[in-house]
Amino acid sequence: MYPRAVEALIASLSRLPGVGRKTAERLALHLVRASAEEARGLAAALTAVKEQVRACSLCRNLADRDPCSICTDPNRDGGLLCIVESPADLAALEAAGSFRGRYFVLAGALSPLDGVGPDNLHLDELLIRVKQSGVREVIIATNPTVEGEATADLLARSLEPSGVSITRLGYGMPVGGDLKYMDGLTLARSLASRKKV
Amino acid sequence: MYPRAVEALIASLSRLPGVGRKTAERLALHLVRASAEEARGLAAALTAVKEQVRACSLCRNLADRDPCSICTDPNRDGGLLCIVESPADLAALEAAGSFRGRYFVLAGALSPLDGVGPDNLHLDELLIRVKQSGVREVIIATNPTVEGEATADLLARSLEPSGVSITRLGYGMPVGGDLKYMDGLTLARSLASRKKV
Repeated sequence: MYPRAVEALIASLSRLPGVGRKTAERLALHLVRASAEEARGLAAALTAVKEQVRACSLCRNLADRDPCSICTDPNRDGGLLCIVESPADLAALEAAGSFRGRYFVLAGALSPLDGVGPDNLHLDELLIRVKQSGVREVIIATNPTVEGEATADLLARSLEPSGVSITRLGYGMPVGGDLKYMDGLTLARSLASRKKV
Repeated sequence: MYPRAVEALIASLSRLPGVGRKTAERLALHLVRASAEEARGLAAALTAVKEQVRACSLCRNLADRDPCSICTDPNRDGGLLCIVESPADLAALEAAGSFRGRYFVLAGALSPLDGVGPDNLHLDELLIRVKQSGVREVIIATNPTVEGEATADLLARSLEPSGVSITRLGYGMPVGGDLKYMDGLTLARSLASRKKV
């Protein structure tokens, strides 16, 4: 019962992840009421993202120039390469601010159910990168999930012949965590990775 | 740490209601990965909505022509006018499918905290509509909230001089509801509006 243009917008918004029909309706009606400037700004931002954003040919992170600003930053240690599953994971590490090496962004994690196998992760580009740019240590920073673990195993096996040092992010209690609410697996990992005080 | 175009899209998406920074990031990264067609479709839908959708000058519902298809439908009873707070409320009533009169859409409900007073609701247009188009019964279908009740009171007082019959949507248990989970106010209203079997 909405005008056709509103229904079309609802349909477009419904295709976004985690947005159902009711949420799409709410967002669409907000945009109908919103200033023309706000709606046009969103439309322009969408178009700009599609026109300007590409994957960096070296690290496969999202970038507006190629190579990206991280790959060309002379103040970063090119011998340290951190492998993440996604641009969002990279952004989280950058926000933490303690890593000063470079990155490689996989196309997600192994997930046979979603049709993501070893051939879909850009492993070839990773191996070329490791071989050609003097990497001495690779830090595997896939997520501590089943898919991330499987991917980490695959990476470790694929990178072994290259002879670089391979490390994995540490597991344990998150800072600010509470023992009594922590799951058993995390506690077991925490114990296994205990350190001398 | 995202390219500027991605940050701009995240900022635009964050302005949507109920969308925080993290959700905006997730949506933006989805759109970056999505087909150009999907992103451009959304951008086009946004532009079209702003260009094509206006308020109907008779009922103030969203419409792509003026007067809207409901106001010009000869099969509807022009003597019955249902007053709702928003186009979404109208859509819900239309989806229910049992009302065959016409509508008037207020610009929301009275809400002094948000700066919405009696002058912001399009009451003048409503009174003109009631006077000029032979309305014999006005059904007040504002929401059963504090703001909706206050608005209903204001409407009843404003419409009284016009001499039309004024009714209000019935209150009570929703169909499929469960007594033991119902709040006390609803139960009290349910009792007060009991009917002979």
